[in-house]
Amino acid sequence: MLIQPGELLAKIDSPADLKKLDQSQLVQFSQELRQFIIDNVSIYGGHFGANLGVVELTTALHYVFNTPEDQLVWDVGHQAYGHKIITGRKDIFHTNRVYNGLSGFPKRKESEYDAFGVGHSSTSISAALGMAMASNIKGEKHRQHIAIIGDGAMTGGIAFEGMNHAGASDANMIIILNDNCMSIDPNVGALKEYLTDITTSHTYNKMRDDVWKLLGKVSGFGKSAQEVVGKLENSIKSFLLKQSNLFESLNLRYFGPVDGHDVNHLVHVLNDLKDIPGPKVLHCVTTKGKGFAPAEKDQTKWHAPGKFDKITGEIQKKPDLTPQAPKYQDVFGHTLVELAEKNDKIVGVTPAMPSGSSLNIMMKEMPDRAFDVGIAEQHAVTFSAGLATQGMIPFCNIYSTFMQRGYDQVIHDVCIQDLAVNFCLDRAGFAGADGPTHHGNYDIAFMRCIPNMIVAAPMNESELRNLLFTSQLPREGKAFTIRYPRGKGVMPEWRTPMEAIEIGTGRQVKEGEDLAILTIGHIGNFALEAAGKLDKEGVSTAVYDMRFVKPLDEKLLHHIFKNHKKVITVEDGCLMGGFGSAILEFMAENDYSAKVKRLGIPDRIVEHGEQYELHAECQFDADGIFQNALQMIETSLSTKL
Amino acid sequence: MLIQPGELLAKIDSPADLKKLDQSQLVQFSQELRQFIIDNVSIYGGHFGANLGVVELTTALHYVFNTPEDQLVWDVGHQAYGHKIITGRKDIFHTNRVYNGLSGFPKRKESEYDAFGVGHSSTSISAALGMAMASNIKGEKHRQHIAIIGDGAMTGGIAFEGMNHAGASDANMIIILNDNCMSIDPNVGALKEYLTDITTSHTYNKMRDDVWKLLGKVSGFGKSAQEVVGKLENSIKSFLLKQSNLFESLNLRYFGPVDGHDVNHLVHVLNDLKDIPGPKVLHCVTTKGKGFAPAEKDQTKWHAPGKFDKITGEIQKKPDLTPQAPKYQDVFGHTLVELAEKNDKIVGVTPAMPSGSSLNIMMKEMPDRAFDVGIAEQHAVTFSAGLATQGMIPFCNIYSTFMQRGYDQVIHDVCIQDLAVNFCLDRAGFAGADGPTHHGNYDIAFMRCIPNMIVAAPMNESELRNLLFTSQLPREGKAFTIRYPRGKGVMPEWRTPMEAIEIGTGRQVKEGEDLAILTIGHIGNFALEAAGKLDKEGVSTAVYDMRFVKPLDEKLLHHIFKNHKKVITVEDGCLMGGFGSAILEFMAENDYSAKVKRLGIPDRIVEHGEQYELHAECQFDADGIFQNALQMIETSLSTKL
Repeated sequence: MLIQPGELLAKIDSPADLKKLDQSQLVQFSQELRQFIIDNVSIYGGHFGANLGVVELTTALHYVFNTPEDQLVWDVGHQAYGHKIITGRKDIFHTNRVYNGLSGFPKRKESEYDAFGVGHSSTSISAALGMAMASNIKGEKHRQHIAIIGDGAMTGGIAFEGMNHAGASDANMIIILNDNCMSIDPNVGALKEYLTDITTSHTYNKMRDDVWKLLGKVSGFGKSAQEVVGKLENSIKSFLLKQSNLFESLNLRYFGPVDGHDVNHLVHVLNDLKDIPGPKVLHCVTTKGKGFAPAEKDQTKWHAPGKFDKITGEIQKKPDLTPQAPKYQDVFGHTLVELAEKNDKIVGVTPAMPSGSSLNIMMKEMPDRAFDVGIAEQHAVTFSAGLATQGMIPFCNIYSTFMQRGYDQVIHDVCIQDLAVNFCLDRAGFAGADGPTHHGNYDIAFMRCIPNMIVAAPMNESELRNLLFTSQLPREGKAFTIRYPRGKGVMPEWRTPMEAIEIGTGRQVKEGEDLAILTIGHIGNFALEAAGKLDKEGVSTAVYDMRFVKPLDEKLLHHIFKNHKKVITVEDGCLMGGFGSAILEFMAENDYSAKVKRLGIPDRIVEHGEQYELHAECQFDADGIFQNALQMIETSLSTKL
Repeated sequence: MLIQPGELLAKIDSPADLKKLDQSQLVQFSQELRQFIIDNVSIYGGHFGANLGVVELTTALHYVFNTPEDQLVWDVGHQAYGHKIITGRKDIFHTNRVYNGLSGFPKRKESEYDAFGVGHSSTSISAALGMAMASNIKGEKHRQHIAIIGDGAMTGGIAFEGMNHAGASDANMIIILNDNCMSIDPNVGALKEYLTDITTSHTYNKMRDDVWKLLGKVSGFGKSAQEVVGKLENSIKSFLLKQSNLFESLNLRYFGPVDGHDVNHLVHVLNDLKDIPGPKVLHCVTTKGKGFAPAEKDQTKWHAPGKFDKITGEIQKKPDLTPQAPKYQDVFGHTLVELAEKNDKIVGVTPAMPSGSSLNIMMKEMPDRAFDVGIAEQHAVTFSAGLATQGMIPFCNIYSTFMQRGYDQVIHDVCIQDLAVNFCLDRAGFAGADGPTHHGNYDIAFMRCIPNMIVAAPMNESELRNLLFTSQLPREGKAFTIRYPRGKGVMPEWRTPMEAIEIGTGRQVKEGEDLAILTIGHIGNFALEAAGKLDKEGVSTAVYDMRFVKPLDEKLLHHIFKNHKKVITVEDGCLMGGFGSAILEFMAENDYSAKVKRLGIPDRIVEHGEQYELHAECQFDADGIFQNALQMIETSLSTKL
């Protein structure tokens, strides 16, 4: 179904078309763009609040700047729907986030207007600075390089690193701080306080009061001095605000705050900024969800609400194929609280994903022992290491894909010191519609190569509970990684009694003689389904849920390789260096020879789509495993003949 | 040889002993501590300038605080010699950085006074905050948590992430900013400018001038207002400095700047700060190399000068076993300039390691095309990605161990977008005396699992030059990693003509029939030596320099596995998921069976020592390879009997 754009929007297929509008039409155009986004997302789903928040900003940017020659880098990028719609993708926008459709984020291969691919936060300043420096080297002084970054993303360390470099450079760039006091969940930290402070003039008011008192203290001059200050109030205000500015400290010229929903004022300001050379910051204040009342009211809920009724604001529940099974996220969240109630050493840490990870359950129940540290994965890991040195038992919950940000800290601060930190890697494997920037494909490979590291994955809810239970028992050192996918498990009755698992032990979940399938994590269920079908085809298939990638269950593996000459390994992680490779290493060290087929994520970028679509594409859904197994059996039969 | 401590220092074996001194003795004690460090480092080598810079600070901290109950976290940690000497390690300090001796960095296993192990920069605030939060939870409100961090380290993103969290917390912690305008090389970036600014009062002076003009503009009030300001100058100065402060913006109470070499004043200030709750910053200005004139004068040279004559200041040259062969670093530095002179698209990027990486050669020759971005590995990678989008050819030189910091950016900003960025991973393999925090053990495993990534390593100088030449030729996408070790190669005549290498091709460097050794990188030379000895023992040994871990030379591998049943792989990287595992993956995919022994870095933390000592420990020096090969041959003979 093609959503009908409004009268002005219907004529716009490129920024050049937009520039043909009279400036007086921009308010109406913004409204149409907003409505088009509401219409689309209500029917097809996707990110919502952040896109409504930047409608006017997007309009003004493309109206003022000469894109794609001037380059827009959208930080995170889930707010770039308006940008995509203006830059020639209006008619295919209904394919947004769909398998083989448009990406939900800017993507270089999709459009020349997408100057830089994004997904993870806080990269825009560094990327735009690189572009600006290239322009300097090439003598293209006229080009503009604009990073549009939210206040939440500003807390990510790389943003600060980028500002530190930019401030010492002569780069021709504008950093637009899109300040809406939110990332996905409400933004946290001192920077947030600071921004609230300057937008509400608290700092100025405090400063004025203090100066007032100071002046009053000087006898004889008190009165006249106070009179002077009174007269000068407005001039001093703007002057002092600028002097006391965080960004000015970093040698970035600071402008603002301005109303990010006043499109005409934005056009005016951006036109002025164009002519000011060097690195600068424009502070825009916007409202996430602007123009759709329910979204303005509950910004976390409306970050990416799924499909909804645009009239009533009722959010449509997703068709639920396994209605009773809970999400792994919720099993984590509830189980952690259950454990923490009995073990007062347990603490929880999340870098800005309390609702996504379900750590918000613990944050509500035990606010003193659960920490949202902001978009700051590096800090989250080292902060957890610090907690562990004091005998606390941290559960640091980070999406697999974001753990890439804290990798050095895992090695340097946790594992080299052999500290007992628990990492819960959420959204391991394919993330789904968010696509390659968010897939958690590499963690098995990059975590298992670190000494003093345990790596495990639960096949179902009960196993997750047991792993969580096991990881909070006293142990000497060793980090403990538990990875699990986004979404639902398989056990309606998931509140099983918890018991300790011996670390490094797997389990046989199905017997069989002709073939052994070794799996890790939730995808073991696919293998089980495939094995049932294989049995029916006359291929007696054993399934082993290895449970631990590291340490491997060597006893079980000896048993397997003594009894099987045909083995398939399955993992929802990269094949290079992953679980299957660990099995090959075991074989080489123990002189086993067997035909081994490894299934998992191939060595290429897998795009976005529903998880099941991507599992099928990579041939490790139940059918893929079944087909691969049949082929393996047939090949070995034909070899024998 | 045991260095004799001075009269006061001789009596100090713990902070408790230090506290017995009268405060009036601290100046003398500091001098003795400084002299002890000079005496030791002049004879045994080690980090120097940074340690002299914090002598008084170290003395004051242990005099004022109740360590180890109060916790000191030394950022980076190469400045903690005084701390180690005061805390019971004076008599074994001559074993510093020696195999089986003291670590050159704080290390939890070494002493209870080492609250947190360090090595990489910028972690101290996060770690100390974790400790402080644990104290909060446990109700140990009396405990102090102190992070001592240099201005260079402040530019690392995790430091900012930590401050953002700390500033929003009620943590009882002190951040001591040890401001010496240096990291290893002179510090860069806007933060440095800012700190210079506040220590020299430029900001205040500018502010005062502007206020002065502003007041003068108000007719009628001009004169009296200016008089008021004149009278109030000192009060206003301290008030305004505080209001305009970067740290205050982040809700951290700011104190200073204070003279970091006035030990009595430091004691006074720290005693005051102890009683002020919440997170706070003390800005100390120190001089790197303080008290040793040559070190004050050339701070980069004296960062870690090796052994020297403490009277003349003459630095002793290391005994040079291969006098003619150059360091890989210098081959990189000179070759890059050679290439950049002919290819104007080439740019160089280093995160704060210009002299260590030898990128300083290009920075000197082509200042506009070589960037030192500060301690900011994440930014370095994304900045390089930004440059690459504009058709530039970035050579981003990062030590293997520090690349762990930019890992997400390699995946997310470079490889997912398939950008042609070149990564030169310096100090791959064992770093040597710097130890486990600096070993580059994991890069083969964590880089090869990323799609769109080429991973190569040169066996000698000529190969490095050819790889550099190859990596700057036009190509469609793909990141290109070239890893090489710290130190010398093997070719006195290293300025060989450069030629392109076909990507993904290895080479046979020695023929043989009984055994094939497959190597990657410089350690191929060890294999060649071992193979020579094996031939003499009657084991005809072939050696293959595979050159690329990814893509593997499949043609060559087919040849090898068709002709060999006994194979040894050698790598100076972790065995889990590394080069040897890539060979096993090839075998599994192609149904080869051979006995394969993988040599490399085992799955445990390998401590510090000379590189050759660690190679021997891990049995992949020439002798280790020789012994392993003999054992493999003998085992297979005895199996046959």
